[in-house]
Amino acid sequence: MSPGAPAGARTRPTFGVDIGGTKVLGVALDADGSLLAEARVATPHVATGAGPAGRVVGSEVAHAVAEVVGRLHAMLPPSAGGTPAPVGVGVPGMLDHEGVLRYAPNLLSASGADMSGLLEGLLPATPVVIENDANCAVVAEHAFGAARGFDDVVMATLGTGIGGGILLGGSLVGGGHGFAGEIGHMVVDPAGPPCPCGSRGCWERYASGGGLGRLALEAALAGHLVEVVELAGGDPEAVRGEHVTRAALEGDPGARAVLEELGWWVALGLSNLAAVVDPELFVLGGGLAEAGDLLVLPTRRAYATLVEGGDRRPPVGIVVAELGERAGAVGAALRARRALT
Amino acid sequence: MSPGAPAGARTRPTFGVDIGGTKVLGVALDADGSLLAEARVATPHVATGAGPAGRVVGSEVAHAVAEVVGRLHAMLPPSAGGTPAPVGVGVPGMLDHEGVLRYAPNLLSASGADMSGLLEGLLPATPVVIENDANCAVVAEHAFGAARGFDDVVMATLGTGIGGGILLGGSLVGGGHGFAGEIGHMVVDPAGPPCPCGSRGCWERYASGGGLGRLALEAALAGHLVEVVELAGGDPEAVRGEHVTRAALEGDPGARAVLEELGWWVALGLSNLAAVVDPELFVLGGGLAEAGDLLVLPTRRAYATLVEGGDRRPPVGIVVAELGERAGAVGAALRARRALT
Repeated sequence: MSPGAPAGARTRPTFGVDIGGTKVLGVALDADGSLLAEARVATPHVATGAGPAGRVVGSEVAHAVAEVVGRLHAMLPPSAGGTPAPVGVGVPGMLDHEGVLRYAPNLLSASGADMSGLLEGLLPATPVVIENDANCAVVAEHAFGAARGFDDVVMATLGTGIGGGILLGGSLVGGGHGFAGEIGHMVVDPAGPPCPCGSRGCWERYASGGGLGRLALEAALAGHLVEVVELAGGDPEAVRGEHVTRAALEGDPGARAVLEELGWWVALGLSNLAAVVDPELFVLGGGLAEAGDLLVLPTRRAYATLVEGGDRRPPVGIVVAELGERAGAVGAALRARRALT
Repeated sequence: MSPGAPAGARTRPTFGVDIGGTKVLGVALDADGSLLAEARVATPHVATGAGPAGRVVGSEVAHAVAEVVGRLHAMLPPSAGGTPAPVGVGVPGMLDHEGVLRYAPNLLSASGADMSGLLEGLLPATPVVIENDANCAVVAEHAFGAARGFDDVVMATLGTGIGGGILLGGSLVGGGHGFAGEIGHMVVDPAGPPCPCGSRGCWERYASGGGLGRLALEAALAGHLVEVVELAGGDPEAVRGEHVTRAALEGDPGARAVLEELGWWVALGLSNLAAVVDPELFVLGGGLAEAGDLLVLPTRRAYATLVEGGDRRPPVGIVVAELGERAGAVGAALRARRALT
């Protein structure tokens, strides 16, 4: 902070809110980035068909953000007046420079929502900055997490879908319209399974939670996941990522083989990203990254064989994110502080 | 140029040399970028197995560059003494920050060559800047060609392989090690044909000259390219890109269908690049781009259906490069001038 910053700015909090598929998570950070408070509500899902879907669900989501901000305010000491603390908001999908969520394959009914306008209405006089959620996550990992000290970084959040944030030369890559980093929608097999985005064989059909579920179901139906199916209550259709991870941790060879295959698909997308932007470091976040070495080690092995000129280029780290589920919210707060102070 | 630039610098030429698969092409530019002279020699191809291949061919290639520079000097009025004119050199493949060509799938026997050291030895006292060839091409198209006025640009050179140059915010993207823009080696079908790089189903197996040859051969063997096979002297195995383009220009439906399919593959890679870096403009260069609208129109149609959220995002131009075969050499000269003056 510059010596000329306004009095009180050093201790004034910044809020960050991350809109996820299941929860809306908010944090309040002090000027050093320390966590002052945290709040969460469930992501509102309105049935499609109830009117102009984008506006309806977008508005519900904006209300959830405002509620989280209100809860954070209530958890902190009363402020000394003046402008309310700035709020950064991370949203999934293609957000344009005007704050309109142009397209969100994994939050389809909010596509088209004017998030900026909705939040201005609900948080009057509050400075609000909106940013793609995975972009927020890589900013947070760069400031406080696994990407400290690296300026050319690709972060892939492996969850329901795959989000991406790209830093080059220490700066976030937005692209011409703000849509850069939609890495889950690189097509890696044009004859592959259909994707909600309308294409076939997008990377996120293979290397996300849904991809793991499909690999696990195939293995279960082939009889290779006896222990995993037991964990899922005996029904192969009920097998989920957490069952596979738990069985793999206990040494089950079938479960380990599924994670090995998943790692190959993760590595395929990373090697494509290396071809395009050549980062020094890959950071894996999202729910799948919680498998840790069970996923990262197979990914590293496969990456070495897949990346162009693998034995002629300097080694590139593939590591797990450190900030967990808070990365998006922390990064959103950092974006707000940087833009507004 | 700054007011304090040395006397004579305004009129001093800059040389650019582009190392291609078949020719080494050099240009001399004046301070406004106008062409003062041009020279070319055939790219030396030394049989592999003749000693440490990388050094041998790298050294032959460096000699060819020095010969082109000598010819350019001979075509210009004698200089007034002092440091020789700066030389920019564009090389195909993964060039690291030290000027070592780490890996060049389409110039395999030069892989590992220390281009910087070789050229320093052959061009004593000459300031030399080395850069990836497709990076040079996008710099040239940005300065004088199809990308004037656009700051977020991806250029794909569709030739023997596919090269790529990426500008974001008007600056060339180098990545962590200088290898960004190796876009031809994004895998778009892991079960596809093998690539010299060691992977399978790289984009350049489909959307390059080799890809067109494969599509044309398949169509010819299926009996769909009667006129094209005639142009090729009656042998389906002898069908090449230029036969397909010529027949398509004459309206042959089979040839047009092949270019339509080629356009679909070009568009697949471009939509992957849009997902990652979201440019405002794609520029297509290289030999295939000479087909013009016969390739560009099918590419645009397919891109609109393939890119994520196609109907929700601003339209993106897909245009043919304007500087033709000189783009790489002109861009190399511009890089040298920028780095050295």
